[in-house]
Amino acid sequence: MTDYGELNPPLRILMGPGPSNVHPRVLRAMSTPLVGHLDPEFLKIMDEVQELLRYVFQTKNQFTIPVSGTGSAGMETGFVNLIEDGDEVVVGVNGVFGERMSDIAGRCGGKLTRVEAEWGNIIPPEKIAEAVKGKKVKLVAVVHAETSTGAWQPLEEIANISHNAGALFLVDAVTSLGGCPVKLDEWGIDVCYSGTQKCLSAPPGLSPVSFNERARQVITSRKKKVQSWYLDMSMIEKYWGKERTYHHTAPITMVYGLREALRLIQEEGLENCFKRHELNHKALKKGLEKLGLSLHAHEGHRLWMLNTVRVPEGVDEARVRKRLLDEFNIEIGGGLGVLKGKVWRVGLMGYSSREENVLYFLHAMEKILDGEGWKK
Amino acid sequence: MTDYGELNPPLRILMGPGPSNVHPRVLRAMSTPLVGHLDPEFLKIMDEVQELLRYVFQTKNQFTIPVSGTGSAGMETGFVNLIEDGDEVVVGVNGVFGERMSDIAGRCGGKLTRVEAEWGNIIPPEKIAEAVKGKKVKLVAVVHAETSTGAWQPLEEIANISHNAGALFLVDAVTSLGGCPVKLDEWGIDVCYSGTQKCLSAPPGLSPVSFNERARQVITSRKKKVQSWYLDMSMIEKYWGKERTYHHTAPITMVYGLREALRLIQEEGLENCFKRHELNHKALKKGLEKLGLSLHAHEGHRLWMLNTVRVPEGVDEARVRKRLLDEFNIEIGGGLGVLKGKVWRVGLMGYSSREENVLYFLHAMEKILDGEGWKK
Repeated sequence: MTDYGELNPPLRILMGPGPSNVHPRVLRAMSTPLVGHLDPEFLKIMDEVQELLRYVFQTKNQFTIPVSGTGSAGMETGFVNLIEDGDEVVVGVNGVFGERMSDIAGRCGGKLTRVEAEWGNIIPPEKIAEAVKGKKVKLVAVVHAETSTGAWQPLEEIANISHNAGALFLVDAVTSLGGCPVKLDEWGIDVCYSGTQKCLSAPPGLSPVSFNERARQVITSRKKKVQSWYLDMSMIEKYWGKERTYHHTAPITMVYGLREALRLIQEEGLENCFKRHELNHKALKKGLEKLGLSLHAHEGHRLWMLNTVRVPEGVDEARVRKRLLDEFNIEIGGGLGVLKGKVWRVGLMGYSSREENVLYFLHAMEKILDGEGWKK
Repeated sequence: MTDYGELNPPLRILMGPGPSNVHPRVLRAMSTPLVGHLDPEFLKIMDEVQELLRYVFQTKNQFTIPVSGTGSAGMETGFVNLIEDGDEVVVGVNGVFGERMSDIAGRCGGKLTRVEAEWGNIIPPEKIAEAVKGKKVKLVAVVHAETSTGAWQPLEEIANISHNAGALFLVDAVTSLGGCPVKLDEWGIDVCYSGTQKCLSAPPGLSPVSFNERARQVITSRKKKVQSWYLDMSMIEKYWGKERTYHHTAPITMVYGLREALRLIQEEGLENCFKRHELNHKALKKGLEKLGLSLHAHEGHRLWMLNTVRVPEGVDEARVRKRLLDEFNIEIGGGLGVLKGKVWRVGLMGYSSREENVLYFLHAMEKILDGEGWKK
């Protein structure tokens, strides 16, 4: 029989589009022996995680929980619970994750209107206003931080447009939560989901979501059952809420990790956490400019935590990434979709957003681009 | 701001219906720093996990992977990928998990025939034969180890009945995999799913699934997209298969844990693992009889890893469980559904299936039942 040997992966500096490096304290928390998912002590931990999630989501929403799947499960949770056959849905599409939302909205039977923008630009609020005009739209959805392009979508105006049209406003904050402000209550976001593996510095596997009362009302007044049993919030709510009714077994170890990750953000302070992400982004940008490299996302709408860097003419981008990984243990991402081959994606998320990482990455890039090893 | 303090849950002996205790080596593996989900080194780990899963599933099925959710996500994966609107589905219902399968089959638009049996009994194969007669059934589904009742369902005859009727055969092996034989290829199981938190001794959060070629054909010849994007096997297959196309970010740390858990089973040997589960079940049964307690599930069809114990007349079952937890740090489960208040559920799964646990539990029960602290 094959002997697979002890787990011994290389020690990487994770500066791609996620996962980011997990804080050692989070890994330590995850090595804690488990209690049961209905243990009174676990119920306390669940409450704490919910309180801490409300802190990072800047919300009072009672129904704020981690869904038992990755960010995409959170996306699906938003759509399957709110959309029924024939409901009008408006989705902003300016990257891979807007595309994904469209795909999911369609699978839920939603009648889809796509509002498109070039990859790297934001969705202009006025185009959303046009799209909702004269329709009975149930849901407007956009991506806050488009991980495939580096574009930073402003949200407040679209929230107002959605509400004036009588629609709910859903936001993908997978990459933004914990790295820049995501103010659910102040901005009027009705439903929001995120992921643990980006600016929260925990491993992938959970998707924090938050539904406000308006969104919950929509769920409770559905005509048909939610098409996903696993993501049915009307049932999951009874486990995370007062009833504590068993639904599915919570991923206990991941919840342990998330608790510690959120505690780290609380210790640092949310505002300081944002400032750190901003500062390291600025340092990276300056360094890249010195190397003659430039950012792809539209100026004024560039994310702090995910930087799309234009691949210079004649450079074999995959070869550069391979050398970064093999020689420097640095992971960055390639472009997706229409940006494939055209950009690198450099993440500075959570525990990966550190000065030493910025400096070491710039040093590595300088060395690689200085030689001959980058040519096509 | 609230100070939540360091994570410090009590050290429990988990003898409920799952999660079971996680092996310390699995927890240690989970504290390993992460690599990216497309890192060449992670791709190797994925291959190893797939090979090890084939070993425990006793199958050559190429498409054998861990779904990024708990056992119930695995259940949903089976149904959403195979069932389309109006498809005939036959589901055996003799406990909570058969009920759950029925619920999910309905949410997929399946035309459902329920084959029922008393909770604690098995589904008689001849009743499945009756149910498929004269219909064009697409899928027959039963639960191998009904965690809510302790019943152990024989599978081979139902596999033959299903195949003769031209149907696929789907099996829930959430609680059985790793604790007793689950022979996919030999028995003719077309689709099977499990969970990591039972006899595999890893935390909850992943659901190993396996689809054979026949089942894959059904997926590739679907008329409509799978209603769940997150669980769409036609896309997930391209990430776990040769293409390595990004779908969603794999829960890396959970995959690390599963790899180590499977390696532990490989080291012990699958057959030895089964023998250990059998032996500890027998010891528990003997000890319970000495205490005047008896098992609920039908004789001859009792699971080794999940024992439903009848609550004697006049005993406050919740009070006994509370004392076990508070005074002995032992978790067992209460009854579910029609068995609520009537049985305790005592799990001896994976790393929890140990002689010392059996002895300590019997000692604790003796002490509790001997006094006055159990009365209603």
